[in-house]
Amino acid sequence: MSLETFPPPAGYNAPEQVHITQGDHNGRGMIISWVTSLNEDGSNVVTYWIASSDGSDNKSVIATTSSYRYFDYTSGYLHHAIIKELEYKTKYFYELGTGRSTRQFNLTPPKVGPDVPYTFGVIGDLGQTYASNQTLYNYMSNPKGQAVLFAGDLSYADDHPNHDQSKWDSYGRFVEPSAAYQPWIWAAGNHEIDYAQSIGETQPFKPYKNRYHVPYRASQNKYTPQNSWLQDEFKKVNRSETPWLIVLVHAPWYNSNNYHYMEGESMRVTFEPWFVENKVDIVFAGHVHAYERSERVSNIQYNITDGMSTPVKDQNAPVYITIGDGGNIEGIANIFTDPQPSYSAFREASFGHALLEIKNRTHAHYTWHRNKEDEAVIADSIWLKNRYYLPEEETI
Amino acid sequence: MSLETFPPPAGYNAPEQVHITQGDHNGRGMIISWVTSLNEDGSNVVTYWIASSDGSDNKSVIATTSSYRYFDYTSGYLHHAIIKELEYKTKYFYELGTGRSTRQFNLTPPKVGPDVPYTFGVIGDLGQTYASNQTLYNYMSNPKGQAVLFAGDLSYADDHPNHDQSKWDSYGRFVEPSAAYQPWIWAAGNHEIDYAQSIGETQPFKPYKNRYHVPYRASQNKYTPQNSWLQDEFKKVNRSETPWLIVLVHAPWYNSNNYHYMEGESMRVTFEPWFVENKVDIVFAGHVHAYERSERVSNIQYNITDGMSTPVKDQNAPVYITIGDGGNIEGIANIFTDPQPSYSAFREASFGHALLEIKNRTHAHYTWHRNKEDEAVIADSIWLKNRYYLPEEETI
Repeated sequence: MSLETFPPPAGYNAPEQVHITQGDHNGRGMIISWVTSLNEDGSNVVTYWIASSDGSDNKSVIATTSSYRYFDYTSGYLHHAIIKELEYKTKYFYELGTGRSTRQFNLTPPKVGPDVPYTFGVIGDLGQTYASNQTLYNYMSNPKGQAVLFAGDLSYADDHPNHDQSKWDSYGRFVEPSAAYQPWIWAAGNHEIDYAQSIGETQPFKPYKNRYHVPYRASQNKYTPQNSWLQDEFKKVNRSETPWLIVLVHAPWYNSNNYHYMEGESMRVTFEPWFVENKVDIVFAGHVHAYERSERVSNIQYNITDGMSTPVKDQNAPVYITIGDGGNIEGIANIFTDPQPSYSAFREASFGHALLEIKNRTHAHYTWHRNKEDEAVIADSIWLKNRYYLPEEETI
Repeated sequence: MSLETFPPPAGYNAPEQVHITQGDHNGRGMIISWVTSLNEDGSNVVTYWIASSDGSDNKSVIATTSSYRYFDYTSGYLHHAIIKELEYKTKYFYELGTGRSTRQFNLTPPKVGPDVPYTFGVIGDLGQTYASNQTLYNYMSNPKGQAVLFAGDLSYADDHPNHDQSKWDSYGRFVEPSAAYQPWIWAAGNHEIDYAQSIGETQPFKPYKNRYHVPYRASQNKYTPQNSWLQDEFKKVNRSETPWLIVLVHAPWYNSNNYHYMEGESMRVTFEPWFVENKVDIVFAGHVHAYERSERVSNIQYNITDGMSTPVKDQNAPVYITIGDGGNIEGIANIFTDPQPSYSAFREASFGHALLEIKNRTHAHYTWHRNKEDEAVIADSIWLKNRYYLPEEETI
């Protein structure tokens, strides 16, 4: 959609592109991010208070501010501030901007605990088209979602001439109505790389790193940081605190769509044994612009010479879900391999999003919502059982 | 071996760690690299002349000079200069250093052409132990070698406390007797990464990049620069100019040693189809500290569901050679899988090096030289036929 569809807010140096994401391990911190066109006194400050208070004991945090150049574009001032020691299950207001241009938002850190119900939205490859709008507003029209797991590929700025960076700005405005009020967890996709040697832009992930805060180093090699990061990360998981183990990747490992077929193989052969060993519950991927859900399968017996390299049913394996159907500018991926392979449980080339409703430590209800006109229709659903506490086969 | 084994040359600010590598596509350029402890007038200059001339028409080139810090170490001044427009098949002298500390070396760019005989040494995982010395001096004792293809893992500085960077210096002195006179083509291995978060060193390949000039970006992902680099590189190969297509990687793709077993899988599944399509003749790898040569096999029919994932004989495939037997500090890798798989033609856990004698566009004689006391013994050999001009099965 045109830039005019997502105008900046009115007011002198008004804060825009507001988004929040998880700020600490315990769920009591939140990273608040926003952009201002000028870097003036107070434009880098977030003020926040408990909604039920009178606001007299509000607190302020000063952001870390950066700006970047990309080819002929200079970004606004990108502010990131962490607010900490929030109370669980308590609504907060937070305010950005100065003078007549202040803007107010709110957020609510959830109660924590292994049996606390919590609902994630799941979106990937969103972009900023008419279909993207349908997806986002379908998700927002359902009050259940408390946070979004995003499977990579945000703005698709790189599909525009010279990676038109104003598309990163319009994307930030587009998702603000949700992302300013609930944390979005951003995995990085290939459209975040913005590597363009022909225009002298050779620092991978520069715009993304400046704008969004997440682990981003991309590499599948055993000797590079991602590998040791992931090993350490798995060790830190305590299933009695967080029963559900969910992983976001960008390129799917089990994909029966012709688009990007087998592109995830290099990552799968490296990491799949760890996923099974650690009883990962669900892996969400994007990249393929369609929807697919796998059976619980693994393909980790291969030793080069034994020929044992087909996916087999495995109750210790994750369910793999491709949710790259956000609706971006590149269109739908509508050619699947024929026949449908046995590892594929459900697949459909439609735009949409998913909801993952965690009920307690043993059960979660998962639903895929196909975009249909201006409403979302549940087209796939399954009761998932936790692989650590209840590793039984699921029935739909 | 101790640092004292490889002392710096005598003389005030004498140039040391001299090494050369190919400087252009046509074989008329050479990169001269050296180190000085001080950065004084003239210490960054290389002077060169045709050996048969009287030296009166010598030429000079000023180097690009850098220095780096790593934890508590500060490097000397690292100079790299490209000398160009050299005559083929002509011996040159080149001189480094100033005053009483000048040092002279020589180099000879070979004649070029598709049927010009040329002999490569092949060495990997060399390190700087007693065994490393045997390997290097065995290679040097044979006058045939004109250049070295190095399969990664140079100094093993990272096996020492805080990645002791003086080990990079001693390594540079150790290989100088060969590397100052003939080009060494350096592939990067995992021991070049020098990533050490605990001591604040998080810029991968910093020492290596400063000291050695080669393509180094490591990544197997389809959307990162290595992928597009390799695609472009294959397109540039003109087999009527350069009949033999040889690739250096670090982790082997066909390895039947228990050490690092299947670590190359992520790279293999990504790139192997291109290697077969482009009729690569030979792939040299290091990483495993032993010797192994494969049959001509490929394993590229796999489509996830067909189960066709075992190596099969393929006359369009490269021979894969693991030559990580240079003799580094980590010792020999002496446990092979049992039985020997069919893709493995020859394997032995001994230190050594190889020679690849290209005879013309169709034939090359390849030999592996096991270290034995102070001499090298040919323990494996094969006449290789060029995959582009003569893609027939070879017999030993």
